[in-house]
Amino acid sequence: MISSTQNPQIKLAAKLRDSSRARREHGLFFLEGYRLCMDALENGYTPELLLCTDKFDLPGAVHISESVAQKLGDTVTPQGMFGLFAHSPLSSLTTSPLKEGGKVVALENLQDPANLGAIARTAEALGLHGLVISGGCDVYHPKALRASMGALLRLPVTAVDNLSAWLQACTLPTYAAVPVESAITPSECDFSAGAVVVIGNEGNGLSQEAIAACDASITIPMRGRAESLNAAAAAAILMWELCK
Amino acid sequence: MISSTQNPQIKLAAKLRDSSRARREHGLFFLEGYRLCMDALENGYTPELLLCTDKFDLPGAVHISESVAQKLGDTVTPQGMFGLFAHSPLSSLTTSPLKEGGKVVALENLQDPANLGAIARTAEALGLHGLVISGGCDVYHPKALRASMGALLRLPVTAVDNLSAWLQACTLPTYAAVPVESAITPSECDFSAGAVVVIGNEGNGLSQEAIAACDASITIPMRGRAESLNAAAAAAILMWELCK
Repeated sequence: MISSTQNPQIKLAAKLRDSSRARREHGLFFLEGYRLCMDALENGYTPELLLCTDKFDLPGAVHISESVAQKLGDTVTPQGMFGLFAHSPLSSLTTSPLKEGGKVVALENLQDPANLGAIARTAEALGLHGLVISGGCDVYHPKALRASMGALLRLPVTAVDNLSAWLQACTLPTYAAVPVESAITPSECDFSAGAVVVIGNEGNGLSQEAIAACDASITIPMRGRAESLNAAAAAAILMWELCK
Repeated sequence: MISSTQNPQIKLAAKLRDSSRARREHGLFFLEGYRLCMDALENGYTPELLLCTDKFDLPGAVHISESVAQKLGDTVTPQGMFGLFAHSPLSSLTTSPLKEGGKVVALENLQDPANLGAIARTAEALGLHGLVISGGCDVYHPKALRASMGALLRLPVTAVDNLSAWLQACTLPTYAAVPVESAITPSECDFSAGAVVVIGNEGNGLSQEAIAACDASITIPMRGRAESLNAAAAAAILMWELCK
């Protein structure tokens, strides 16, 4: 039973919870909660360490005190189960769904892990084939994983270093989502052959390079005084149009 | 220049920032940031107190030190402007938009202020006529106001005590959003005469009373393993269908 937050395993867990850099350096990520840990196990992620309070009886898990669980928990009332898992080599989108009517959302430098998680959850629910991420998006951020309800552990996710180059090489039609009135609207698009919709950073939108690399720009017509939709709402509407 | 966080005005501001109950009792709410304070002033909200650091030169504002601004700020890098405003008598949806093709979203007991704000922002951007709130929704929560980008200060918002009774009396067609396969889908609906779409609590969905009070139940067809969309994503898709 670990009852000290100074225990090296607990300190590692806290580091992986808090630091994107630690997650990269160790090749591990932190999960909180029974459901997410089970999702990871079911989807073939390798557990490096499972931690739980006496409330759980999990083979191979190291037991921790309630006070350690409180410190480790990122939620208001931690359930008392945590896992450290090895990164999966991000499951690649195979070329076939990209060729044959694949429906994919690509994210450029999304800042807010809650948005990333929400978009992954919506993408899975609507039946998209995968997610492409680039820039600062960290799919192993605990907030992203939680907001995704595990979708980030199940959806095919590809991380690309150079999104513009990837878009230029992509054989599917590519659409840059922009808040620009002259862009085409979803009703003017035929998505039956599949498509990639590209969503930009919350504050700055898409880079000029990403917009130029796409076949067309797409917009959601707006009527009110709000200047733009938030990234997760825009993504939800465009993914819905893509999939229906 | 106020330089102590023990100053009664600063203590009141912090209370209004943190407590829904304090906001109700004082009939005031707390705003952070230049843009939101200007939105409130432009939309006729009465400022009880404006607070700013020396970075701003605002007539009538009380100056505060940088350290007080840091304490008061809810964001990582506070701009240094805050306002306490009187609640507006929540602007009523007049009966006319409800009669003549009005498009309205109603929220039952939404828990997460970020969701409430995101839904308001999307509603305004897509051109909905108003928002109906009930249960625990607090439109004066600083996180809701911030996530709405001020839309909650501009959109007509009606708070109702008994949502089911309001829905039953409503002359527009009413649709309960539910994750139930047998419900009708957006493509089966004709929204040209206007409609009210009702979104439920994040964890529990809509109450049986609210569902029963609606003319029909509507659902977003789902394909993936995710059991449901989050409230803001479901609302975005349904409001988009309502308005296009």
